[in-house]
Amino acid sequence: MTTTADLPAYCTDVARRAAAASAATSLLNGEVKNRWLLQAAADLRQQTPQILEANQKDIAAAPDYGLTAAQIDRLKLTPDRIAGIAQALDEIAALPDPIGEVIESSVRPNGLEVAKLRVPLGVVFFIYESRPNVTADAAAICIKSGNAVILRGGKEAAHSSRAIVDIMREAARRSGVPEDAIQLVATTDRAAVGHFLGLPQFIDVAIPRGGEGLIRRVTAEAQMPVLKHFDGNCHVYVDEFADLKMAVAITLNSKCQRMGVCNACESLLVHETIAEQFLPMVDQALQEQDVEIRGDQLTCKLVSRAVAASEEDYRTEYLGPTISVKIVPAITAAIAHINQYGSHHTDVIVTQNLPAARRFASAVDSAAVIVNASTRFNDGGQFGLGAEIGISTDKFHARGPCGLRELTSYKYVVYGNGQVRE
Amino acid sequence: MTTTADLPAYCTDVARRAAAASAATSLLNGEVKNRWLLQAAADLRQQTPQILEANQKDIAAAPDYGLTAAQIDRLKLTPDRIAGIAQALDEIAALPDPIGEVIESSVRPNGLEVAKLRVPLGVVFFIYESRPNVTADAAAICIKSGNAVILRGGKEAAHSSRAIVDIMREAARRSGVPEDAIQLVATTDRAAVGHFLGLPQFIDVAIPRGGEGLIRRVTAEAQMPVLKHFDGNCHVYVDEFADLKMAVAITLNSKCQRMGVCNACESLLVHETIAEQFLPMVDQALQEQDVEIRGDQLTCKLVSRAVAASEEDYRTEYLGPTISVKIVPAITAAIAHINQYGSHHTDVIVTQNLPAARRFASAVDSAAVIVNASTRFNDGGQFGLGAEIGISTDKFHARGPCGLRELTSYKYVVYGNGQVRE
Repeated sequence: MTTTADLPAYCTDVARRAAAASAATSLLNGEVKNRWLLQAAADLRQQTPQILEANQKDIAAAPDYGLTAAQIDRLKLTPDRIAGIAQALDEIAALPDPIGEVIESSVRPNGLEVAKLRVPLGVVFFIYESRPNVTADAAAICIKSGNAVILRGGKEAAHSSRAIVDIMREAARRSGVPEDAIQLVATTDRAAVGHFLGLPQFIDVAIPRGGEGLIRRVTAEAQMPVLKHFDGNCHVYVDEFADLKMAVAITLNSKCQRMGVCNACESLLVHETIAEQFLPMVDQALQEQDVEIRGDQLTCKLVSRAVAASEEDYRTEYLGPTISVKIVPAITAAIAHINQYGSHHTDVIVTQNLPAARRFASAVDSAAVIVNASTRFNDGGQFGLGAEIGISTDKFHARGPCGLRELTSYKYVVYGNGQVRE
Repeated sequence: MTTTADLPAYCTDVARRAAAASAATSLLNGEVKNRWLLQAAADLRQQTPQILEANQKDIAAAPDYGLTAAQIDRLKLTPDRIAGIAQALDEIAALPDPIGEVIESSVRPNGLEVAKLRVPLGVVFFIYESRPNVTADAAAICIKSGNAVILRGGKEAAHSSRAIVDIMREAARRSGVPEDAIQLVATTDRAAVGHFLGLPQFIDVAIPRGGEGLIRRVTAEAQMPVLKHFDGNCHVYVDEFADLKMAVAITLNSKCQRMGVCNACESLLVHETIAEQFLPMVDQALQEQDVEIRGDQLTCKLVSRAVAASEEDYRTEYLGPTISVKIVPAITAAIAHINQYGSHHTDVIVTQNLPAARRFASAVDSAAVIVNASTRFNDGGQFGLGAEIGISTDKFHARGPCGLRELTSYKYVVYGNGQVRE
């Protein structure tokens, strides 16, 4: 830990070490990175008692931080949860190494062989909140993709994260991975984040994961690129040509399968032609899950328990048992509503009509547009990326779930035999 | 033109129009975009006299702006040069449309069909200096890739750029491309740039092209991502296993084929084993081109006309008839020097040795690493991109020459038949 006076020097030192380590990490063979992952997984399993002991300290301090019971539950580690963390590392080891892949290549008319090769981004600054499993996951994804990582976890999980990182660094030392490729910021002083965000000469990308306030702060202050999404105001649009039974199942799953996540549905749009038939069906299903409905005038007429939605409701990510509902006169209105009120995260159309599906897919400007399936599928695992460090709603660099390849760049490597330009 | 008081409102209006136009431009068929390009090319040819008349006004004002003879020459249009501008549009029309391409796809075990589709970035804010041909080129590349563009050209070419843009907008009107997808900023007030850089809600990427001062200003102020390179301090490293005749030809071409460009060579590194033999050879060739040599102690001993290089010389992009030279004891020292002093732009090794070539290619952290060919090949045309809006030395999003595809993003489009998550 450091005093406030030392803070800028401390942060610069951490970032400089990360940059130096990243040069070496970028050149590691996949075998070395995998050896580290398997070693770290084994050590996490073997040192379960020590991790639990550290976690106990965090749990004991949790009431002082004002954590809710649900938050404390997410913070709590058990032998099973530690086994799960270790297994995730084993699974990342099993993924193909993204580095060195020839993304594309061509031979030019003059004989020059031009190839685009996948390379790491460099140094990732990862800022996240309390869940200790994220510490191990993020470190594994960053190193496997050839980067160095600076981990800045929440103070609530400080002891647990420290125990996990110490084990992963020791495994690095024994496997030939530079220890400084995995650094946990050793202070919970909030000012440290600001210092790191001002070091673009050492840090190549900042990835904030947590509440919208944290993400807005990081985005405003960062002098390097940021991979992020602010929130997930995701829509299900039930088209006039929808299979209504399917539409109920998709709405229910999108809203209720896990309410507190970014790819949960927050808003339901219904074509007016089928509203009278569909709304009572979906209302019954949502009522069984205790989901409150906030709707426009017509919705309130068709669903007696619905309350009037405000303009603000259509912008709101509830992350809980509430859904906004709007009846639209046409697919164009649904698309316009989603592009205006949504988060450009995940939006679904339910329809059996081909032109409607194609039109929605091309005109809705979101990271993932899904036809006839749940919003909950916008996820690195579900899309087949293998592991995920977050979801981006930006268009620059990476959009949607970010896995190993989204933490990479490329370089041109050109071979000739003496070519010069005329 | 606007007064200073109106400036923020004017800039916001331009950006808002661009954003609205970009939604429509993103959905245009390739046929429409190509029709516009061919129409614009024909109109530029047909209206050559009007363009020359506008250009005359810029040429007449040039002395007031303190332009050098070389700068005035670059500003000057002729019927041939206008024909060249038109031909470039024809060539961009002939390139494949990048939009809608399925970049990759998979069918998940549950039957979901997950595809990554190429989509435009949105709105490009392009800030550039005086050459009027760049106006037409940039507009063509942005629209062909489905984006809208806000063009902010140098005041020196204001009349020429206005004439060209008016023709391209009129062609847009007649071809079905939204006119506001191509807007030229109607004020040369420098404050306008700052206003645009503060509108990330409308502008998706800023691309500055010009002097390092301009680029640093844009990078510091932009609240949206920036595609750029600051400078091009490019190296040729002549390895101990080089073909020395090839090394002379590559050094000469890299340095002298065109001195004022970002991919010209500025610094020569020579392995000590061959220095005594190589330096007199390359010195003679460089002397014939009147290139001054600034070297380290040993270089000055071997080349009598060389002057002592300062530390600063090794960081300098001369853009003219000067080259810095350093003798290195090993390839590792060459790599370390390039990564420390270079611009991560374009670096060349000349060697016949396979491990040396492979090592240099993987360890030099530059947008393009070239083995046995001139630095001058790092170029969109030479790499086969077809057209180029600039070169990036960043790792985020796009690195190296930026053509049509580098102005795109992607979205996930997923088709199911009712899948929900368990």
